[in-house]
Amino acid sequence: MKRVEYPAAIRALVGELKRMPGIGPRSAERIALWMVQARDARSRDIAASILAVCEQIHACPQCGFFTSEPLCEFCAAPDRDNSLLCVVEQPTDILPIERTGVFRGRYQSLGGRISPLDHIGPDDLRIAALVRRVRSEHPAEVILALGTDVEGEATSNYIAELLQELPVSITRIAQGLPVGGGLDHADELTLNRALTGRTQHGKGR
Amino acid sequence: MKRVEYPAAIRALVGELKRMPGIGPRSAERIALWMVQARDARSRDIAASILAVCEQIHACPQCGFFTSEPLCEFCAAPDRDNSLLCVVEQPTDILPIERTGVFRGRYQSLGGRISPLDHIGPDDLRIAALVRRVRSEHPAEVILALGTDVEGEATSNYIAELLQELPVSITRIAQGLPVGGGLDHADELTLNRALTGRTQHGKGR
Repeated sequence: MKRVEYPAAIRALVGELKRMPGIGPRSAERIALWMVQARDARSRDIAASILAVCEQIHACPQCGFFTSEPLCEFCAAPDRDNSLLCVVEQPTDILPIERTGVFRGRYQSLGGRISPLDHIGPDDLRIAALVRRVRSEHPAEVILALGTDVEGEATSNYIAELLQELPVSITRIAQGLPVGGGLDHADELTLNRALTGRTQHGKGR
Repeated sequence: MKRVEYPAAIRALVGELKRMPGIGPRSAERIALWMVQARDARSRDIAASILAVCEQIHACPQCGFFTSEPLCEFCAAPDRDNSLLCVVEQPTDILPIERTGVFRGRYQSLGGRISPLDHIGPDDLRIAALVRRVRSEHPAEVILALGTDVEGEATSNYIAELLQELPVSITRIAQGLPVGGGLDHADELTLNRALTGRTQHGKGR
């Protein structure tokens, strides 16, 4: 007996929705059937929003953040501190840093990190562009705000070595206990970093 | 300090995606940012699939199932048993029944169930159409396959009363222990229904 299925257009939609992050086959089917049954023009509105994003949004040519303008709001802002350049892996890392309110410099996203297992080398990232930018814009400090896993560390080290010759201070964001976390929840390596990176009481806050 | 946000087109997309079932604000943002960064024409493909479903798929005018043809595959099939009519709440209930392989009759979905709290009365459902269909097609049996909650029960009772005068046998699907479930996991009401609906050993399978 042949397996009964939904019409082809619905099956095609389920196949497309399954590609989205965090959406499994059952969620995809649920969303697709909701779209078939949705009232008003709701499903068409979603499609229109996707197309609008595809048409209007592109990566800022300077830092890689999302924008609908020639330059993103951080690169275009005239009142930001040009002496500080914060390097992140992904453009999605920029807003979380911006929302802390303690950084008012410029950003540069690499578009990933060096990961030989995924066949991603330095040439696949915007590392050469970063070096060119440091040479031309002369920031006083480059802050490496990459991930703290092996690939993030390796990428940080690689960039630090590249920039070594240039007259720029290279720093990286602190590793230690997350705020609100007790020592009993911290793993050994985090505690190691928290100890070796200790600061004078009253400082570093 | 003003809260920093993604460009307007991305925020609009997040707003649309949040409407989808099972998608919260964080998932919506994650999917939207994935769409911005997706390679090839993947995001456009998703939009195209949504529009294709909106254009091609409609409810079967007879039973309510999804189809791109004038009648759905179940209503159009010449070899199904016209003497059996299975009533379900939603068109999405049809495929699960069909996949059991034990039913080869016709279907009718109501589009919901009577629920005064949600302001859904008999006139908001395809109940009158069901009665007309029973009158004109003369099935020997109407199988009520609605939910077993209060609203499903009330809807079943309402339909059974409406059809009482007509020369048709009215049945409902059995309530009892789910297959593979022990008695220790069954609630009192389910066990009650399982006992009162008991069948001769060797039958009902």
